[in-house]
Amino acid sequence: MTASRPGRFLTLEGLEGVGKTTNLAFVESWLQRHEIPYLVTREPGGTPLAEELRHLLLNPRTEAVDPWCELLMVFAARAQHLNTLIRPALAAGTWVLSDRFTDATYAYQGAGRGLPLPDIEVLENLVQRELRPDCTFLLDAPPEVGLSRARDRGELDRFEREKVDFFERARRIYLDRAAAAPERYHVLDATQPLAAVQQDMAARLEALRP
Amino acid sequence: MTASRPGRFLTLEGLEGVGKTTNLAFVESWLQRHEIPYLVTREPGGTPLAEELRHLLLNPRTEAVDPWCELLMVFAARAQHLNTLIRPALAAGTWVLSDRFTDATYAYQGAGRGLPLPDIEVLENLVQRELRPDCTFLLDAPPEVGLSRARDRGELDRFEREKVDFFERARRIYLDRAAAAPERYHVLDATQPLAAVQQDMAARLEALRP
Repeated sequence: MTASRPGRFLTLEGLEGVGKTTNLAFVESWLQRHEIPYLVTREPGGTPLAEELRHLLLNPRTEAVDPWCELLMVFAARAQHLNTLIRPALAAGTWVLSDRFTDATYAYQGAGRGLPLPDIEVLENLVQRELRPDCTFLLDAPPEVGLSRARDRGELDRFEREKVDFFERARRIYLDRAAAAPERYHVLDATQPLAAVQQDMAARLEALRP
Repeated sequence: MTASRPGRFLTLEGLEGVGKTTNLAFVESWLQRHEIPYLVTREPGGTPLAEELRHLLLNPRTEAVDPWCELLMVFAARAQHLNTLIRPALAAGTWVLSDRFTDATYAYQGAGRGLPLPDIEVLENLVQRELRPDCTFLLDAPPEVGLSRARDRGELDRFEREKVDFFERARRIYLDRAAAAPERYHVLDATQPLAAVQQDMAARLEALRP
């Protein structure tokens, strides 16, 4: 049985250490308060197989990882996540909140690794067909801010080990994509006090309510 | 330093249990006899990361694997294999002999799983650009013949557990592709005595010698 109205698909994006976890919890509490059925998930990951792919993607390794291999692993995990978890949830009227989605692929594999953005778009269209998030919150801050936070958390993953200019390029693409589709993206200045960021998020969430 | 003449790229294709291992060893001994530098590899796999992807692909699991996820994992492993192992070897004048390559993707994920062949072609072009095998040996036999051999070997992988009609469809695509490009494919009747199959292979290999 599918609900008469599909769930909304919300994504949270941003560089390392910009406060995604805290703000994800805020959106989750907002959904609870409004008694909206929801699920919280993340990319890469969200299903056992997709989490195994996440592990392959994030773990530092001695073998150099070909950027194309990395990009295709990201989309493999996404296909599994989308077709076995996200699409069925949305069809049943459940809202889906994902910690990262395809914008991160444009930012990290596109701008970061230097893969052509049109090739990423080909994969996005193959795997997602017409599906795009209804709303993307972009937590924006200069890379230095978040990277020092990420470093304080301990062991760095394969991406966190990248140099600042990797993240500078990623940030630029995030902002470019947000500027090109303001109806979908909501850019939040992550250097502001948390209360201000969350007031801003709440206003946007209210506008999405059925 | 690259050799003045790149190596040849040979692939061996066919359903389960058609004798790929035995015939791979035959090609290998032919290459040794002619003192041609070569490497033998396989798909999915060929590098540590690609072998980890092979493990995810072949191991039976309780979670249903989305066909798109499967297809993208195959191409992720292929990108790693191609860009870090195969291309550098060919450029250095080494011949590469691979147990399966992209024809298997058309057969298994295309015909077998029912994914659109044009979508597979999009991925083939993205990942391989212009690279195609110089010669593909297709060991052809009715699926029943090889499947009973595969079953005798013990524990079945996620593909070997498929029903006969999966392999019937895969065989048909293999033969269609071979018929469409006879200059690249060499179809061998794997139900013939081994000596006859190998005499046929040797003649084709002779024609590829520098």
